[in-house]
Amino acid sequence: MLAWMNRDAVAETLATGRVTYWSRSRGALWRKGESSGQVQRLVELRLDCDGDALLALVDQHGVACHTGRRSCFSWALRDGAMAAIAPPEADPKALYGT
Amino acid sequence: MLAWMNRDAVAETLATGRVTYWSRSRGALWRKGESSGQVQRLVELRLDCDGDALLALVDQHGVACHTGRRSCFSWALRDGAMAAIAPPEADPKALYGT
Repeated sequence: MLAWMNRDAVAETLATGRVTYWSRSRGALWRKGESSGQVQRLVELRLDCDGDALLALVDQHGVACHTGRRSCFSWALRDGAMAAIAPPEADPKALYGT
Repeated sequence: MLAWMNRDAVAETLATGRVTYWSRSRGALWRKGESSGQVQRLVELRLDCDGDALLALVDQHGVACHTGRRSCFSWALRDGAMAAIAPPEADPKALYGT
């Protein structure tokens, strides 16, 4: 998955070991899994060469994607059209209660 | 590495199989490796669940990072300070001729 962190999100992630992002749409810290229970425990937070991107290695509880797939990057070209390349492993309705 | 693509970069990447980004600083297509020779051959381009991020699986010739490291994400916290966690595998001066 790709998401955003601000200074507070980085600080909280490092302090708690639970990966926390910054939700630009909600304007609030987003503690991954707070709705779905699909939390991410931090293994290592890596910084890139120009210091503006982070790579979080995590222990993913359940699935990372809101579609119920393990990875958000679950679509690719197949026979000239975008297609899902991995099935949902969890029911989003069960994860989010909607 | 994390970089940007625009429509033309995606199209050229898919057409040629050579990963091409959009350089926001130069305002031009950036054919990865055009200066360094460290090209990326596309294995698969994956799209995320909300369609605004791509994950390129590549066959990386040499190193991806301008510092000569295999990965741009080669820094992490060690004893409370950011430290390089992987050594350069190539000399940037040799790659870029400067």
